[in-house]
Amino acid sequence: MSAIRHALSVKRTDDFAQWYQEVVSAADMAEESGVRGCMVIKPWGYGIWERLQRLMDDRIKAAGVDNCYFPIFIPLANFTREAEHVDGFAKEMAVVTHHRLIADGKGGLIPDPDAKLEEPLIVRPTSETIIGDAMSRWIQSWRDLPLRLNQWANVVRWEMRTRMFLRTSEFLWQEGHTAHEDRDDAMRETLRALEMYRSFAEDVLAMPVIAGEKPENERFPGAVATYSIEAMMQDGKALQAGTSHYLGTSFAHAAGIHYQDRDGGQQLCHTASWGVSTRLIGGLIMTHGDDDGLRVPPAVAPWQVVILPMLRDNDGDEALLSYCEELRAGIAAQTALGEPVRVLLDTKPGKAAAKRWDWVRKGAPVILEVGGRDMENGVVSQLRRDRLWGDGGKPNFAAPVRDECIASIGPMLEEIQQSLLIEAQERREANVTRGVTRIDELETFYAEDQRFPGWMEVQWSKPTGTALDKVVEQLKALKLTIRNVPMDAAPADGTCIFTGEPAVERIYIARAY
Amino acid sequence: MSAIRHALSVKRTDDFAQWYQEVVSAADMAEESGVRGCMVIKPWGYGIWERLQRLMDDRIKAAGVDNCYFPIFIPLANFTREAEHVDGFAKEMAVVTHHRLIADGKGGLIPDPDAKLEEPLIVRPTSETIIGDAMSRWIQSWRDLPLRLNQWANVVRWEMRTRMFLRTSEFLWQEGHTAHEDRDDAMRETLRALEMYRSFAEDVLAMPVIAGEKPENERFPGAVATYSIEAMMQDGKALQAGTSHYLGTSFAHAAGIHYQDRDGGQQLCHTASWGVSTRLIGGLIMTHGDDDGLRVPPAVAPWQVVILPMLRDNDGDEALLSYCEELRAGIAAQTALGEPVRVLLDTKPGKAAAKRWDWVRKGAPVILEVGGRDMENGVVSQLRRDRLWGDGGKPNFAAPVRDECIASIGPMLEEIQQSLLIEAQERREANVTRGVTRIDELETFYAEDQRFPGWMEVQWSKPTGTALDKVVEQLKALKLTIRNVPMDAAPADGTCIFTGEPAVERIYIARAY
Repeated sequence: MSAIRHALSVKRTDDFAQWYQEVVSAADMAEESGVRGCMVIKPWGYGIWERLQRLMDDRIKAAGVDNCYFPIFIPLANFTREAEHVDGFAKEMAVVTHHRLIADGKGGLIPDPDAKLEEPLIVRPTSETIIGDAMSRWIQSWRDLPLRLNQWANVVRWEMRTRMFLRTSEFLWQEGHTAHEDRDDAMRETLRALEMYRSFAEDVLAMPVIAGEKPENERFPGAVATYSIEAMMQDGKALQAGTSHYLGTSFAHAAGIHYQDRDGGQQLCHTASWGVSTRLIGGLIMTHGDDDGLRVPPAVAPWQVVILPMLRDNDGDEALLSYCEELRAGIAAQTALGEPVRVLLDTKPGKAAAKRWDWVRKGAPVILEVGGRDMENGVVSQLRRDRLWGDGGKPNFAAPVRDECIASIGPMLEEIQQSLLIEAQERREANVTRGVTRIDELETFYAEDQRFPGWMEVQWSKPTGTALDKVVEQLKALKLTIRNVPMDAAPADGTCIFTGEPAVERIYIARAY
Repeated sequence: MSAIRHALSVKRTDDFAQWYQEVVSAADMAEESGVRGCMVIKPWGYGIWERLQRLMDDRIKAAGVDNCYFPIFIPLANFTREAEHVDGFAKEMAVVTHHRLIADGKGGLIPDPDAKLEEPLIVRPTSETIIGDAMSRWIQSWRDLPLRLNQWANVVRWEMRTRMFLRTSEFLWQEGHTAHEDRDDAMRETLRALEMYRSFAEDVLAMPVIAGEKPENERFPGAVATYSIEAMMQDGKALQAGTSHYLGTSFAHAAGIHYQDRDGGQQLCHTASWGVSTRLIGGLIMTHGDDDGLRVPPAVAPWQVVILPMLRDNDGDEALLSYCEELRAGIAAQTALGEPVRVLLDTKPGKAAAKRWDWVRKGAPVILEVGGRDMENGVVSQLRRDRLWGDGGKPNFAAPVRDECIASIGPMLEEIQQSLLIEAQERREANVTRGVTRIDELETFYAEDQRFPGWMEVQWSKPTGTALDKVVEQLKALKLTIRNVPMDAAPADGTCIFTGEPAVERIYIARAY
């Protein structure tokens, strides 16, 4: 038995949902705002989002996509038009109906009846329609194509059951919207975005994902093809962490996005859209969190290294602080993952042990404690968040001399980044069941009382229409969904687990967030 | 007479308001969205905002302020509370009353009467109250102070008369909100933010500003003191380009932001707030624009250098593109203003001359044209946007050899940055009238039919209450306002232009946006 006293009160294996909430709170990432379904993203959570946003934005810019900004309000008429074109159009939206408050005569305020809008405005749930309007103005000829736009924005979808980062009424995201001459070019963009997300998830978030096409029943309403990246959380469930859609000409038709082709004829554009959101942070938590809190991959850690001087409120503090400041400056001059190391000298008031555990829960990759004795010996007490516990249930401190600590910090951060990825990859591989060919086997597997059954890769004949509906229902009874058809899978070589017909491809099946 | 044929159809001196609209449109910065009072910020305009945002954010982070994110929706009750505490509380806000759309049975959509919110939600006009709520939860003792938060967000104020970038219903901004132990610390923060804005405006936007305290009648509702930076536009009007407020304890009282002090007693925090917005881009246009469009200071130009190859759609194009690519790579390896030079090789289809004038209107600091003859001679045709016209009304091209062009680009960009600032400073100084001591002189001066009368610096006795109201009315008749009391002015040495009493300080008077 381990004698470890973990920093959280709930273990992943005991109650994963409760553990998740505790990490969000104990790592000081976010909290309920008191406004239904909306969260406050606190500095540590927002700092991770900013890192993530900047690194994704660099990739978006490098791909030649232009950022811009469209209004938060969308006229109701845009949705009327879309509702005509799109089955499954979602109607849970925040509706603005008035533009003024007025005193109610009883000490309160009410919407002013004289300030009712002629046409209600919708707080954007996504910007397809308003960006489509702009594209119809901005595109005249093939010379204007491709037109590739991206927006970082807040969007609102009225959600009944919310969960911080994973599903909130307001969330932050980027939405790419592009218009092209033909199917091929639009599909190239759709897959480019998918690959951008896949490599970002793995290289930056250290979160292995499966990139693939969603089945027909899981497509974005109105899309011709929807692709996703799917990540396995530590409870074996899948998280759809990003999507990319080829929209054909249906959105162009609805918004009137035409262009004059090279022969002078009028054509409809083919459009695509792609997005990731603050949901990625939920994925980060459920990929890298442990029973001591979050572990932030160094690439997105707002502070990669935190120095904690063990101050005693006495004359010795000055020398200690100066020793720590030299340490900080030395580390700040290092690089890791192609950027200067982000290091904080944390001099906030508080007990050193309490501060250590705060940073453990937040998941700073490396914590350096420096007490009077460390200074005398010219060393630093160094704790790696990914190797927190040593023998005997004690924190696994190393004690390098200061210069060695400084010189090794860059490679160490890179090693942590890599090791988090490998750990997650190995866990995923251990939790994918392959080779099941009979539906009763699948049913037995998921009906069993396994805590975290994981994913199953099976082969199928890609049924459509009512045949697909039947499959979806069958899976739904087990709370399962088809996640996607992986891009890089081996060719099918068996029969379909659902229909018994020859299989045409492999799919992943899982419970999902 | 100059034979110059300018790139815009309207000159600043002919119709400044019309000229402004033309720059916004001709520089491809923004356009009306069709949604009342909201604009679409196009890639060039948004690119400038991103530059500005990143450089301001660097300063905010360097000051130790933490970014975070609060909900876009604020419960009505927060405003009821604020309306009690704050005179002059503005009520023009977007009010969300429903959370679902439903078909109206006639092919349209309406807000679902069954989905009416129990309490309406307000789209944030500013986040004082909701951040105040969080501060009241997050602050327990003096150890938690100062608490310094900042948010980059969109906000909405229902505006009747809108003008792109200057006054729009939705705009983008940052809002800093800080809580402190006492007046001194809160005031230190208020003035730190003010100085951050002042130096940012001058060093980054090349926009000289006067930092100072607003008179009592111009304070933010509820503030104890409001400070601003004021910039002179080319029509001589003032633009309030950023504000910083010391809020005393009134907002802390309303939101219940208490702390336990060092002696164990309960105290109210002193709070401050400070913000700048997309309005700064309006200021940029009216400071640096000319009759050929915008001139973007290199520090905030998304592309500082644009290379235009004069392609002929023939066999020579390949060699020309390769010559241009070497030029691009050479320039990209240079630095200016402490960052790598941002250079674009623009290969979009289109006539070279048309593309040149597009980039002139957008205000790229340096345009490099390369034709076949340039390549043969090993040179580059170089055009500085701040010295566009040469003798005889022709664009003022230089023809440095390519390597020399590359080597000189960094210093040239820095010189352009500096020269735009000096030009604006000299213009402002030439348009401030000083030494007027009698109110009838002031009245005559502003009553005259001068196109751009500029600002006046006068001395006053700092009247308050009804005496101040009288002054404000007197100025209002001339469409004038008191801008601020400059921080660095010479001491008063005369009598008050309004009251005849001994003056205590100097103030700036101007027409304003």
